[in-house]
Amino acid sequence: MMWAVIPAGGSGTRLWPASRRNRPKFLLPLPGPQSMLQATWERLRPLVAPQHCFVVTGAAHVTAVREQLPELPAEQVIAEPAPRGTGPAIGLAAFLVARHAPQALMGSFAADHFVAEPEAFRRAVRAGLRAASEGYLVTIGVPARYPETGYGYIRIGEPLFTADDLTVHRVCQFKEKPDRKTAEAYVRSGEYCWNASMFLWRVDVFLEALRELLPDVHAPLSAIAACWGTPEGQRCLEELWPTVPEVTIDHGIMERASEVAVVPAEFGWADLGDWHGLAELLADDADDSVVLGCEHLGLDTRATLIYGGRRLVVMLGVEDLVVVDTDDVLLVAHRSRAQDVREIVRQLEQLGRQDLL
Amino acid sequence: MMWAVIPAGGSGTRLWPASRRNRPKFLLPLPGPQSMLQATWERLRPLVAPQHCFVVTGAAHVTAVREQLPELPAEQVIAEPAPRGTGPAIGLAAFLVARHAPQALMGSFAADHFVAEPEAFRRAVRAGLRAASEGYLVTIGVPARYPETGYGYIRIGEPLFTADDLTVHRVCQFKEKPDRKTAEAYVRSGEYCWNASMFLWRVDVFLEALRELLPDVHAPLSAIAACWGTPEGQRCLEELWPTVPEVTIDHGIMERASEVAVVPAEFGWADLGDWHGLAELLADDADDSVVLGCEHLGLDTRATLIYGGRRLVVMLGVEDLVVVDTDDVLLVAHRSRAQDVREIVRQLEQLGRQDLL
Repeated sequence: MMWAVIPAGGSGTRLWPASRRNRPKFLLPLPGPQSMLQATWERLRPLVAPQHCFVVTGAAHVTAVREQLPELPAEQVIAEPAPRGTGPAIGLAAFLVARHAPQALMGSFAADHFVAEPEAFRRAVRAGLRAASEGYLVTIGVPARYPETGYGYIRIGEPLFTADDLTVHRVCQFKEKPDRKTAEAYVRSGEYCWNASMFLWRVDVFLEALRELLPDVHAPLSAIAACWGTPEGQRCLEELWPTVPEVTIDHGIMERASEVAVVPAEFGWADLGDWHGLAELLADDADDSVVLGCEHLGLDTRATLIYGGRRLVVMLGVEDLVVVDTDDVLLVAHRSRAQDVREIVRQLEQLGRQDLL
Repeated sequence: MMWAVIPAGGSGTRLWPASRRNRPKFLLPLPGPQSMLQATWERLRPLVAPQHCFVVTGAAHVTAVREQLPELPAEQVIAEPAPRGTGPAIGLAAFLVARHAPQALMGSFAADHFVAEPEAFRRAVRAGLRAASEGYLVTIGVPARYPETGYGYIRIGEPLFTADDLTVHRVCQFKEKPDRKTAEAYVRSGEYCWNASMFLWRVDVFLEALRELLPDVHAPLSAIAACWGTPEGQRCLEELWPTVPEVTIDHGIMERASEVAVVPAEFGWADLGDWHGLAELLADDADDSVVLGCEHLGLDTRATLIYGGRRLVVMLGVEDLVVVDTDDVLLVAHRSRAQDVREIVRQLEQLGRQDLL
C-alpha cells in the first residue's frame, strides 16, 4: 500500500459563480453527484488506506473537507496557515509520511482534476510506483491530443521499462504553458504529454531532492514536522510557515531534478478549468447540451451547459450558452466567453461585492 | 366625473414564468415598479373618483387587488364566480353604476395594457366622453403603425367632430386579428386603428344595447344587480352567474351596435403580450438591453431582456435573449421564440407540474 497527499487549494475563479472563495472548485459536484475531492478520494481508495492519506487545504476549508471525507481521520486534514503553492504543501505531507515510514512510496494528486476512467488511472499509478521504487521522481502524463494552451507539457525521453502495457520513460524536459503555435508543434511531434500534476516517489528520495533543490523549504518544514503532534506543534507551524517560500512542486523540484520519469497514460483526464471545457468534456456530441444538478426542460436547445440548483431551468431556442444558477447569482454566458468569467469576478471585486466572490 | 370599470382577467401565459395562475399579468410590475393594475388605476385617477370605480376579477385575485389598490373601497372589487369574458364582467359593473347614476358616463379599461403617455390617454378619454354623452358607444383606437397580427383592428369611418386636436369618427367596421398580408394592407391604407379594448358610453345607452343585442346576458345580470348588497346578493350571484353566456364586449356589443364611434389617438399604448414585445417596447434602441427588477452586470451583451428578482444576473457575451428569473423557475429563451413560451406552459401542464403554472 502507498501513501498519498491530496493538495486541495485554488479557488477556480473561471468556474464562478459556482466556485467561490469559501466554496472552491474541489468542493463542488463537478460533474457530480459527488465533489471533485470526493471523486479523487474514491479513485485512490483501492490504492491508499485512509490512515495513509493526507489532505492539505486552507484553514477555511478544513471543516468542509472533513465533512466530505468522513472516512479520512480528522487529524490527517492539514490546515495551511496561508497558501504557499504545492511545494510546501506536498513537502510537509512528505515529512509526515516519513515519520511513519521513511522509505514509503508516496503519491500526490490534485483535488480538482477530472478522471473519466479510474481503473486506467490506477494502472498508470501502479506503473509509476515501480519507477518510484527504483528511485525516480515520477510524474503521470497524459498524451497531448490537441493543442491546449492552458496546460503545461512534458517532453518524453527514452523508455525505461514497460509494465501492464504502459511504458515508463525518462522525462526529457518540462515545458511551461505554450502559445498556440508551440502547442500545435508539440502535438504534431507526438513526443509530448500534458502535465497532469500527479507525482509519485519514494519519500526518502523526494525529501533528499527537496533538501538539495529547495533547502529554504526543507529546513522550516523539517522543523515543523519535528514538533508535529506535540504541544508546540501548532505554534511551530504558525511561526515557521510564513517563512517558507512560495513554490510549486513542478518548478521547484520536478523541472530541476535529474532522475525524473513519466508514465504517459490515457485515463480521460481533464483539468475542468472553465465552463466551456466542462461542457466539451461532458457532451457526447458537440450539439448535446449538458445539465448538472437541476431539473430541466429544453425546447430546440443545443450545446448548452446548465449548472443548476433548486430551480427548474427552462431553455427555449438557445445554443452555445453556459447557464449557472446559484442562490445569489445567475450567470448567462456565451460559451466562447468562458475565459472572461474571470473578468466578471474582477469587476465584482472592484465594486466591493465580496459577498459574491 | 365619470365612472369606470377595470376588468382584471386573463393570466398572460406568454409572460410565464413571471405570470402564473395565481399571479396574473395585471398584478405584475411590468415594466415596474408598480403593477399594471396599479398603473391603470393611477392613469384613471384624475378622471375617476375611487368610489366611482369597480374592478371585476377572479375570486382568487380579490385579496391581491385590494392590497394593490388600498384607495379603492373594498366592496368595489367584484369577484366573478367564474370567468365569462369581458361582456358579463363589464355588464355587471354597468348595472351597478346605473343603480347610483342611471345616465352616468362610464368607461372600461383593461387592467393589463401599457400606456406610455397617461396625459395623452386622458385627452383621448375626454374626447371619447363627449361622443359618449351624445349617445355613441365609443372605443378608443390606436392608429396602426405596423402590421401586428396579434391585435384586432377597427376601420375608421366618417368624422363626427374634432375636440382638443382629436377627431372622433364613426366606426366603419371591427376586424378580427388579421393574417400578415391583411395587416399590411390595413397599415398601408391608413384607415385602421388597433382595438385597444377601451370603451366609453352613457350607461343607459350601453344597457339598452345589452338588452337588445345580448338579452340572455342582460336578464341574469339585471337580476343579480337587483339583489346586489342585500342578504341574498351573494347567493343570487352564485346561482345566476353560471347561466350567463361567455361573450366579449367586442364581439357581443361593439361589432353589432349601430351607433359606434372611435377616437384614434396616440398615447404609447401596447398590449405587452409576450417578452419580445415587452423588450421592443422598453428598449430605446434595438441593440439595448432591458433590465427589470434586479441587480445586473453585463459584459458585451445586447438586445437582451432580463426580468429578475433577488439574484444578481450576470450576462456575458450574449444577445437577443429573454431571461426570466423567478423563485422556482428560470427561463432562458431566444427572443424570436417568445411566442413559444405557451408551448412550454403546455408541456408543464402535461407533466402535471401545476405547482409551476
